[in-house]
Amino acid sequence: VRSVGGAAYRLPHTGSSGLADGARIPAAAVSAEDAMLMARLARRGPLSMRLVLTPRTLPDADSYNVIADLPGTDKADEIVIVSGHLDSWDLATGAHDDAVGVASAMAVLETLKRLDYRPRRTIRMIAWMNEENGTRGARGYLAAEQGNVEKHFGAIESDNGAGRPFGMRTSVGPQAMKLFTPLQAALQPLGAGVIQRQDALQTGDLSGLERAGVPSFAPLIDTSDYFDYHHTPADTLDKVDPDNLRRHVAVMTATAWFLANLEQPIGRAAVPER
Amino acid sequence: VRSVGGAAYRLPHTGSSGLADGARIPAAAVSAEDAMLMARLARRGPLSMRLVLTPRTLPDADSYNVIADLPGTDKADEIVIVSGHLDSWDLATGAHDDAVGVASAMAVLETLKRLDYRPRRTIRMIAWMNEENGTRGARGYLAAEQGNVEKHFGAIESDNGAGRPFGMRTSVGPQAMKLFTPLQAALQPLGAGVIQRQDALQTGDLSGLERAGVPSFAPLIDTSDYFDYHHTPADTLDKVDPDNLRRHVAVMTATAWFLANLEQPIGRAAVPER
Repeated sequence: VRSVGGAAYRLPHTGSSGLADGARIPAAAVSAEDAMLMARLARRGPLSMRLVLTPRTLPDADSYNVIADLPGTDKADEIVIVSGHLDSWDLATGAHDDAVGVASAMAVLETLKRLDYRPRRTIRMIAWMNEENGTRGARGYLAAEQGNVEKHFGAIESDNGAGRPFGMRTSVGPQAMKLFTPLQAALQPLGAGVIQRQDALQTGDLSGLERAGVPSFAPLIDTSDYFDYHHTPADTLDKVDPDNLRRHVAVMTATAWFLANLEQPIGRAAVPER
Repeated sequence: VRSVGGAAYRLPHTGSSGLADGARIPAAAVSAEDAMLMARLARRGPLSMRLVLTPRTLPDADSYNVIADLPGTDKADEIVIVSGHLDSWDLATGAHDDAVGVASAMAVLETLKRLDYRPRRTIRMIAWMNEENGTRGARGYLAAEQGNVEKHFGAIESDNGAGRPFGMRTSVGPQAMKLFTPLQAALQPLGAGVIQRQDALQTGDLSGLERAGVPSFAPLIDTSDYFDYHHTPADTLDKVDPDNLRRHVAVMTATAWFLANLEQPIGRAAVPER
């Protein structure tokens, strides 16, 4: 497959491939430049290639979600998750995918503590483990919280890089959208006032909770540069714009605070028929 | 050493390192991103690293300069070289370094033949071998032509990438500069009318001929993007702007044609004292 990034610096994209029923076939991503070269050569006649594929699946090893709660007050048993994922592909340190998500989620708690704001519901920061290779952290969490899913009011994850946020996506039901007008007004001055509803966000870590009925939230992000870095050796800290990171923190914090204090119920996620 | 390119896509620069008297020490280039990471970590305290250096020097193998003459008319025994170098570092196909030079030199002959122009002096296209790792092609040529150096009127090499050319550099003596006014006028409409004189250009392949007295010429090129690609896996054909390549051909062809037909002698290169 042709890598999804631009033809800028001949970086092949890494990642995993999957088929129905968990079957796998060998797959390789080539850089955009090499895909163009193959296309040029193929136009001249038959083309043969030699591919050396080096990825290996190593034995399982223990790893952990990292979880921190900012306890709520009168509705402390209800939970609002703010999250990103802790793992990244090993070509780089994974600044966009997904250190930005983890840092923003951590900064939600840090910001509220500095302001000495106490939410009514508990805000739970989760740095999910193993998003990239099976979402086993999210599956483990869901299994452990199976009896407590209805106490999860909503869940936020940032996992689309550090581009400028311009709003939030959510899978709340259509009937709940009118409740979000105050959040929209709070985000508007940041240039982030778009609230986009979908029947399912299907983000990596939240999709299990979403199928169980927990509405998902994710920053709506300008991803025009994201795939130039995502899953490549170039995904390093210097690619993160500090102003955009601050905007991420503001959007995540405002949304988490809003959800943690809302008087009305927002209902369950509108899970599509499958 | 920190790679000379930008901090865009975490590409370390390859190349060779040299010390006086041909001594060599292990050397490694790290990407700009990694250099910045090291700087950040070093500010916090002692920093240790593990470097795995994989380059090897393989046994010598035969290789060749590629040479083609467009014979002159009444001064056919005098030679004007137009050239680039054929070898490149093996990370990429070496589009900027230096396929552009070879293609431009070849296009000089092609252009003159299409126009049915016959030069007074012989124009010799040379695709030099082994510029990157010892300039043995150029050394071999100089050894073979040692008795004929004074018949080399001038030598052009393009080896600074495919950026926009805005003139020519040359190591002709100061007294010869006034002869170049007509060439300057011919290049001016192309935005390439700057003729910049230096005592020595010291380009990889022409420096031996230059020390032996042959004036060197090289396109003066906008290299602001060059080191983002040069000696990296990203130096591929798609990085070459076709308009700039056409300008290279025009600048090289005009200069070669001018030198091959000039009535007056331009003298010998002004070799600096060493």
